[in-house]
Amino acid sequence: MAKKVLVMATNNSHKLKELREIVDGEVEILSLQDINFHDDIPETCDTLEGNALQKARWIKDRYGYDCLADDTGLMVDALNGAPGVYSARYAGEGHDSAANTRKLLANLEGADSRRAHFSTYIALLIDNDCHIFEGRVDGEISLQPTGEGGFGYDPVFVPDEGGGKSFAEMSGEDKNLISHRGRAVRKLVEFLHTLDR
Amino acid sequence: MAKKVLVMATNNSHKLKELREIVDGEVEILSLQDINFHDDIPETCDTLEGNALQKARWIKDRYGYDCLADDTGLMVDALNGAPGVYSARYAGEGHDSAANTRKLLANLEGADSRRAHFSTYIALLIDNDCHIFEGRVDGEISLQPTGEGGFGYDPVFVPDEGGGKSFAEMSGEDKNLISHRGRAVRKLVEFLHTLDR
Repeated sequence: MAKKVLVMATNNSHKLKELREIVDGEVEILSLQDINFHDDIPETCDTLEGNALQKARWIKDRYGYDCLADDTGLMVDALNGAPGVYSARYAGEGHDSAANTRKLLANLEGADSRRAHFSTYIALLIDNDCHIFEGRVDGEISLQPTGEGGFGYDPVFVPDEGGGKSFAEMSGEDKNLISHRGRAVRKLVEFLHTLDR
Repeated sequence: MAKKVLVMATNNSHKLKELREIVDGEVEILSLQDINFHDDIPETCDTLEGNALQKARWIKDRYGYDCLADDTGLMVDALNGAPGVYSARYAGEGHDSAANTRKLLANLEGADSRRAHFSTYIALLIDNDCHIFEGRVDGEISLQPTGEGGFGYDPVFVPDEGGGKSFAEMSGEDKNLISHRGRAVRKLVEFLHTLDR
């Protein structure tokens, strides 16, 4: 039977490489470049699941390929779920992760609770069906950034299961075992493994 | 300024009438019949939010109108969230609400917990943006159906805020005050009221 082909609707080459390493034996993962798409896909939804689904649908409708896309956010209890779907642009367009993190710490000054969670949603459009996979990790926002690894809010996110370390203090492998993204990807891969049986 | 026009992607005339009564002053709500769509919209997603968004997108892409759609499910803790997105067809295609309810009660026999919640998701595609509104109500699945009102699982769902009555024992008005659907619709309407200001 022919190998299944899936487009991954992301311009993040790290995510592409990661998924290819896990499933390329069974499923061929094409990049947006592979299908000659060199644009940005609009993220117009006010939920993570909605953005993931809309991005996958954008490519599927234009190119016909089965397709997957993801979106991730950090939801902080004391900020009513902010920065949430706006996590990547919390300090405004054109600002970097350090600015986002500074804004987060400033907004949490004096807060009673520092509870937060990361969630990743992956939307998969395949064989006329639509599947959503969520991964979530709960933890606390620390008072100060620690660690040099990871990216985004990793230096201020201390997962409950991480022995007190921030995500940025953990190896990529250790982070992946408990992270939102690791969990969502494992659910996706588990599903992909059930195809063609 | 011209009145906004929205298509409601449902074949349920009750839902259409309800929304029209609430917002028709400010927003004109068109039915699928009004735009000459006489087919079923596929529900292919394994989440409520995904189905709502896909239904709205289906109409928006084909007709260009700003559009909204919804999906509702009953999630039972002891059944790992079942019947969930399959609530309307839990006992199989072509079976009615009574059959679904009997199956639910049978599957819950002897369960430690009878906790459950209803959720409604409404997806709104408007002005190139996508908004998701959720309404949720928590409660218990009763041992036996009670009441003659409502529909679906209403006779076996006893909301925490309902004084011990099932949804089917409440007036439509009382149910609407605390129901998943009432809450989601009020969030939608609140948003629609902010448009054009």
